[in-house]
Order: sequence, then structure tokens, then C-alpha cells
Amino acid sequence: MADSFVVAGVSTMKGLAYSFVILLLSHAPAHSRGTGDMGVLIERASSSVQIVETSNNSSLARVSGLGDLSHASLVYSRDARFAYVFGRDGGLTKVDILSAEITARTLQSGNSIGGAISQDGRLVAVSNYEPGGVKVFNADTLELVADIPASYGSGDLRSKVIGLVDAPGQKFVFTLWDAGEIWVLDMSDQSAPKIEKFRDIGRNPYDALITPDGRYYIAGLFGEDGMALLDLWNPSAGVKRILPNYGKGEQKLPVYKMPHLEGWAVAGDLAFVPAVGRHEVLVINMRSWQEAGRIKVHGQPIFVMARPDGRQVWVNFALPDNDTIQVIDTQSLSIVTQLKPGKGVLHMEFEPRGEEVWLSVRDEDRVEIYDTQTFKRKAFLPATKPSGIFFTSRAHRIGL
Amino acid sequence: MADSFVVAGVSTMKGLAYSFVILLLSHAPAHSRGTGDMGVLIERASSSVQIVETSNNSSLARVSGLGDLSHASLVYSRDARFAYVFGRDGGLTKVDILSAEITARTLQSGNSIGGAISQDGRLVAVSNYEPGGVKVFNADTLELVADIPASYGSGDLRSKVIGLVDAPGQKFVFTLWDAGEIWVLDMSDQSAPKIEKFRDIGRNPYDALITPDGRYYIAGLFGEDGMALLDLWNPSAGVKRILPNYGKGEQKLPVYKMPHLEGWAVAGDLAFVPAVGRHEVLVINMRSWQEAGRIKVHGQPIFVMARPDGRQVWVNFALPDNDTIQVIDTQSLSIVTQLKPGKGVLHMEFEPRGEEVWLSVRDEDRVEIYDTQTFKRKAFLPATKPSGIFFTSRAHRIGL
Repeated sequence: MADSFVVAGVSTMKGLAYSFVILLLSHAPAHSRGTGDMGVLIERASSSVQIVETSNNSSLARVSGLGDLSHASLVYSRDARFAYVFGRDGGLTKVDILSAEITARTLQSGNSIGGAISQDGRLVAVSNYEPGGVKVFNADTLELVADIPASYGSGDLRSKVIGLVDAPGQKFVFTLWDAGEIWVLDMSDQSAPKIEKFRDIGRNPYDALITPDGRYYIAGLFGEDGMALLDLWNPSAGVKRILPNYGKGEQKLPVYKMPHLEGWAVAGDLAFVPAVGRHEVLVINMRSWQEAGRIKVHGQPIFVMARPDGRQVWVNFALPDNDTIQVIDTQSLSIVTQLKPGKGVLHMEFEPRGEEVWLSVRDEDRVEIYDTQTFKRKAFLPATKPSGIFFTSRAHRIGL
Repeated sequence: MADSFVVAGVSTMKGLAYSFVILLLSHAPAHSRGTGDMGVLIERASSSVQIVETSNNSSLARVSGLGDLSHASLVYSRDARFAYVFGRDGGLTKVDILSAEITARTLQSGNSIGGAISQDGRLVAVSNYEPGGVKVFNADTLELVADIPASYGSGDLRSKVIGLVDAPGQKFVFTLWDAGEIWVLDMSDQSAPKIEKFRDIGRNPYDALITPDGRYYIAGLFGEDGMALLDLWNPSAGVKRILPNYGKGEQKLPVYKMPHLEGWAVAGDLAFVPAVGRHEVLVINMRSWQEAGRIKVHGQPIFVMARPDGRQVWVNFALPDNDTIQVIDTQSLSIVTQLKPGKGVLHMEFEPRGEEVWLSVRDEDRVEIYDTQTFKRKAFLPATKPSGIFFTSRAHRIGL
């Protein structure tokens, strides 16, 4: 698909010069445009991503050959030109979204889940299940910078790692599923990584999030009720247990039905959180970390995401309700609309200032774009089994 | 300076093809790179701007011919490719930061101050002193879309307009200095702008800000004490007076010493606000809008700006203390360091994830870049009487 850019770039030229120019432009770095309105969406079944833009809501290119993209996510380089795509098979792929080319790729483990980019954009970290640990790569070259095995117990056991996020101060924070630990990895000195370990945080942390200011790291516990909270401004206070009823009685649910914690929506003092296994969105007061309310919703919530101004929260659901979206008004705590985009609504991404939202509708093979004020569908794009959608404004955010 | 990009772009080419290619590339749209790490700094005395980037902390180009840039500011297009520069002389200039060229320019009034870009990025609004009002332009072409005279009283008077910001829902909010009013302009329907007027908000609003979520619009009053607060989620509640002691006894100060309200720093529930005429930073609880404390500082604060994670607040000062910066820890409310970058520290801009901050040091003709963890100077760039610094991540923020 990269060639389509080249052809577009030389469409005003004629005759003799043509073949020369094709050669020349194939050495030119890429198509020229601002990258602020661009994005990438994952096509999970075809090992491909689509490069899109939000000013005209169009698809720009497709890049293939990215391996197993089930549950894939990505982060952006600080210049918003490169996407680092984390595949399920341990693949870490660097995609140039201007040229629509893979510029680097490494199969860095046998089984991985998610990653993060350091505050300064120089380091990309990946959390691995097998072998369990975190690997840190040079963001330019994808050369290995640090290999952090998630050893625990007497040291011969290695834990699956999950819930990896970046935090201010060149830190990465993650949890150890098997060990029940939270680790804070400080990469300020690349040649001497420092690790701070928080033990006995609870059984089987299955996912985690960091608040948008990078202060609070919160892990969900599969093996018991409640959540584990670490205040990164006050790490000496240790990990506290919050929301003692979170997940109560629901621990027997299979993991694949657990909600996505990175979808916590923060609006003012309130966080909106998917309940585990219940048809409810929980409202949490972030000053006290107490439950402040419950909102009845259509099904088991998966992602609960705030519009950038915090006025609305959009919710999608697990099977059999994954054809539905509900929108909650964060002031009245009431549901203001319900949409039926189609079967398999897997992910949502708001445009940076919130005027539109993109939805992946996997089973319909399309992405839909809605106006968040009128709730009217403004456009749709064909896509092959789309899942995650990621806009470049994430490059500038902590913890995304 | 644009030509330097072309030369760089063809540096691998040789011989016969050279002159042809120069011709070709002069028609090429621009240099190709991600725009996420770019920025523009105002050189107020020379009618020029410098285009910079934060990955290597370097200057990329200079663009001249922008008219009177005293007190100039700018906003970015949604693709982060174009800067709309608001000059003091009524000039509105659209600069392509990839090609380093002026792509459109209009002298749209006799005397203007500041502007904003709509949520969807299609409209650019400018607030004018003379003739008093707001003009709204097509962001692509700079063609006039709407002319909103700031008429008041019996209708034959026109007020200076100030404190213009964007808000969600294609709105612009601004204050009328002479009339003591706040207007909310809704441009959802470009052919039928709607205006909601809030009268008797207080005498001589001199500047205003909107909170980062786009909810609260707050105007400072030159003619009396306190500030005027409009909750845009609840406009029917009208404008309320808050902080009754703000500016108390200081109204006689000349306007040019009034602090910049757009520099309000928000960290968690707290806003950090420059006191008027006093060597203090005020701490405001944003839930109650009550004063929560005062921090003694080195001089009269001008800009009080939060690092993106909210952990630090950086403060610069009016003469004779404008050679100094102080940094406040927002948890302990204590001053953690003091820097002396040089005479005339006019503005500060944090890199999007906060690891570094850029300072304009006007009288030293340079911009300095500091590590916000170590407070060490990492780099500096020569600049001609630099003032405002603006990074492209602003493209994705409400109210900037």
C-alpha cells in the first residue's frame, strides 16, 4: 500500500521523468502530511493494520505481516510517526504510518500481552507471558536494552507479566500474575535498571491501569475480591486494598470475560468502572476510593470509556450483548442513549477533542464513526475483523 | 528556510537529475516527518517564528513576515501540521510547519488578541479589540465564516473582546471588557451562529481561562474583586462570583502587570493561581471554589503552569523578578527549587509528557530546556527575543 502514496505524490508529473521519479520517491522517506489526525486500527484475523485519518474519516493504507494480532495493542513514538504494535505471539512491530511500511520487527518472546513507551519516547517495553518478564527495547532500532525476568519465590519461578504501563520518571509499572506482585521498573539509567517490588498485593492480578496523571496504579485481582492500589507519589506507603466488594463472588468467571481495566473512565473526581460479571457500571470517588454509586446497564460491561471532556461515558458489553453501546451522562449518572452498531463491538476510541468516536464492529467487518453530540452515525469504513483503534494523540499522554 | 528541507531531502542524489529534482520537490508538499514532536516559538521583535522539535531539541526553520507579534499566541490544526498565529496587529497567519511557509494570511482587524480553534478543527476564531468583536474563519482557507460584533448597551457601542477559548460542541466563549459580559457562541450551524449572553458578570473582565475538561470558564475582573465563573454544563445557573478576595485592593495596578489566567495550573482537585500584585500563588479547591491556601513566592507571579502529571507547578514572575523560576511541589505545597535562567523569562511550555520544559529567556535571546526531574539545563537554542512557546500536542487539547 505504500506505493499508493508514491503514485499520489507524483500524479502531476508526465512522460520521460516518470520512471526516474518513481525510483527517486521510493527512496524518499514517506508521504508528507501532519500526523496529528492519524490512527491505526488492528485487523486481528488478517495480521494487518489499517492506517486511518480522522479529518475526513478515511482509510489511508493497510500494512500486513504483523503476526498474531488477537488482543493486540500499540503505542506511538513521540513524533507520532511510528506505531509499535504488540502482537500476542511475542511480535513487536514498528510501523511507519507515513510510508505504511514495517521498519523493524522482532519476535521477542513466545507469548506476550501489551506494552508501553517510556516518558521520553526512547524505550519500548513489552510484557511477556512466556518466558515471563519484561523486555525493554531501543525505540529507534528495537535492539534489546534490558531483559527483566519476572523471577519470584526462591528465584527459580517466573511469573506471567500483565498490566504494563509507563509512568513519569522513565518508569514502567507492571504486575506478576503468578507471584501477586507489583514491580516498578526505573529505566532512568539504561545501563542500570532499578526495580522496586511490592509483594503480597493479592492473588492473580489480571489487569491494571494507571490514572491519566500517572499517579495511581490499580490492579484487578482475579483470585480474590477488591483491587490493589499503589500511589506512585508515595510508594513508601505500600500497596493498599480498595473496593473490597469489587468482583465479590465472581472470581469463578473465566478470564476472558474479565473487563478491561485500561478502560476506566475518569471524569472529575469520579471513575467509572466495569463491574465484574454484573450488569453494572460502578462509580468510584477517586478522592476516597470508595464506591459512590452503581449504574444499571444493558449487559456485562467490557470497556467503559470517557469522552475527553468527561461529560459522557461510553460502554460496550460482553456476549451476548456485544451488539450494543450505552452512553452514560456523568452528571446525572443516567443512560442518555443506546446504540446498536452491530455484532461484535470490540473497542472504542474518541477523537482527541471528543467530537466523534470510532467503534470497531468486528462481525460486520467495519468501523463506525459517530457524532458524540447527536449520536448520529457519520461514516463507516470497511475493515477486516477490526479490534483495537488507536489515534496518534496517545503519543502525548501518560500511561497510554 | 524551507529550501533547506529540499536540499536535505535530495542529498543522496547526484549529477544530471539534480536540477530536475529541485524543481520537482519545490512542488512537493513539504518535508516528510511526524509532527507530534514539533513546536513553534514566537520571536516577538522580528515578526518571525521558529519551528522546533523536542526529540533532539533543535531548531528546524524560521518563518518571517508575520507582523506585530507582541503578545502573540497560536493554535494548531487538527492534523498538527498548521499553526494559526494571532498577531497583535489583527494579523491571522497560517503557517505550514512542515514546509516552513506561510500558506494564508489575513489582516482581519486593527487590533486583536488571541484566538481559538473549534473542536472539529474546521473554524478559527479571533478576538478583536478594534473593532470589538469576534471573527470566525474557515480553517482551510481563512475565508470569513462569521463576523460577531460585540455590541452592547443600546446596540451602538462595541466592546473589546478578550479571553476567547474553544469549548466542546463547536462553541467559543469570550468576555466583553467594556460591557462586563460573557458570550457563548455556538457555531454548530455555520450559517446560523447562536449566541448566549451572560450580562452583569462584573466590571472589566481582563482575561479568562477554561478548565482542561472544557467545563468551567473563569474570567478575572479588573474593575472589582473576585472572579466570574460559568459552568458550561449548567449554563442556566448563570454566572457566579467566586474567590471574593481575588485581586482585593489591587485593582489600581496597570493592566500589563495582571497575571495570565490561561496559566492556571490544575492538579487533581487543586488549581494554582497567580495572585494579583502579591508575592503569592493561591491554591483553590476546584470542588468548592474556595481558597485552600497561599504559597509565598519570589515575586509577582505571571504564569503558573502545571507539569502534565500535576506533580509540579512552575512559576515565572513580573519585573524586577523576571530572571527567576520557582517550582512548587503540589503535594507538599513547598518550593522545591529555584532557577535563574536569565533576564526576561516570559513563557514556559512542557513537553507533552512532562519530562522537559522549555523556557523563553527574552533578554538573553535564547530558549532554555530543562529536565523537570533533575532541574538540570539540557540544551538551549538561540532565538530572537523569544516569547510564547507552543507544542503541537495542543492540537488535541480542549481550550488551548
